Amino acid sequence: MASTRDRIVDASAELFRRQGYSATGVKQIVTEAQAPFGSVYHFFPGGKEQLGAEAIRHSGALYEMLIPAVFDLAPDVVTGTRDFFAGAAAHLVDTNYEDACPIATVALEVSSSSEMLREACAEVFESWIAAGTQRHVQAGIPPEKARELTIAMIAALEGAFVLARALRTTEPLEVAGALAAEAVRAAVDAAG
Amino acid sequence: MASTRDRIVDASAELFRRQGYSATGVKQIVTEAQAPFGSVYHFFPGGKEQLGAEAIRHSGALYEMLIPAVFDLAPDVVTGTRDFFAGAAAHLVDTNYEDACPIATVALEVSSSSEMLREACAEVFESWIAAGTQRHVQAGIPPEKARELTIAMIAALEGAFVLARALRTTEPLEVAGALAAEAVRAAVDAAG
Repeated sequence: MASTRDRIVDASAELFRRQGYSATGVKQIVTEAQAPFGSVYHFFPGGKEQLGAEAIRHSGALYEMLIPAVFDLAPDVVTGTRDFFAGAAAHLVDTNYEDACPIATVALEVSSSSEMLREACAEVFESWIAAGTQRHVQAGIPPEKARELTIAMIAALEGAFVLARALRTTEPLEVAGALAAEAVRAAVDAAG
Repeated sequence: MASTRDRIVDASAELFRRQGYSATGVKQIVTEAQAPFGSVYHFFPGGKEQLGAEAIRHSGALYEMLIPAVFDLAPDVVTGTRDFFAGAAAHLVDTNYEDACPIATVALEVSSSSEMLREACAEVFESWIAAGTQRHVQAGIPPEKARELTIAMIAALEGAFVLARALRTTEPLEVAGALAAEAVRAAVDAAG
């Protein structure tokens, strides 16, 4: 079984993803983590905010692993882009539209109220942008264009999650994914 | 001065946009609205959830008015698309990255926990999709493609807001806006 500290971080990340930061109380976290109440303050003397920053970074690193996991299996970066959106859509359906991005809800809630949490979200997004940019550069796209394309891809995915969860349909992920794949194809063609 | 009921709805919409639904308490709403505490339950017997649904629909209708406001001034739908993202970026800077979408934060927070609020968010997104689709159809794009393009535009804007608020830069709105404008131009060219 994972350590108490790890279970607290995992449970927090899960709850933030489904209902956001503000709706998640320390009591719910320790219940889900099967941890004693005081353990949160033992491991995280800064309380919920410090735990929040760690859960964001932890989820961010886990989700970043999806980039090689999907793109290494695809024959090319255009197919990889389409597969990434299709995989996100399938996972959303499998989880009854609950599990989308572990960062976006918190990012929107706290960007204007907690500098510590905003910075954690920003770090995660920057690391995703760097990882995606590297993939696009490897596909022959010039670095500046690769970065712009990656930012637009992540934005498309995040926004499609917002619409998909509210509308309870994968249509936004499908159309955003198709447009993203087209944009990558155009950039690869322009570079080649 | 606006009626007490209107002030309560306006204050709620404003607070939801900046900090989300869960972090916003009825006490904070009545303080901002300069309304007596009991007035929320007088006007909204269903409490915060009923008020939330009304604030979402109210904000949604207000923001929908931005579509004709921006596109009627633009010489064509491609310029209108670029102007829409540029206007959003300028407003974000003007408000210290606080004022982005009035619906997205709540949509992510509540989609899995309140069916009443999720439905209000879905109604707003559907009305925006319908309004944007109509614009694209007027520009000569076939209805099905016009709808897909509009969904992808709204997704791009929503996701760019997530990144922009966390990263405190308008770069995501700029690159997403450029890509969106390119996609609209391609669709107009294909239709013409």
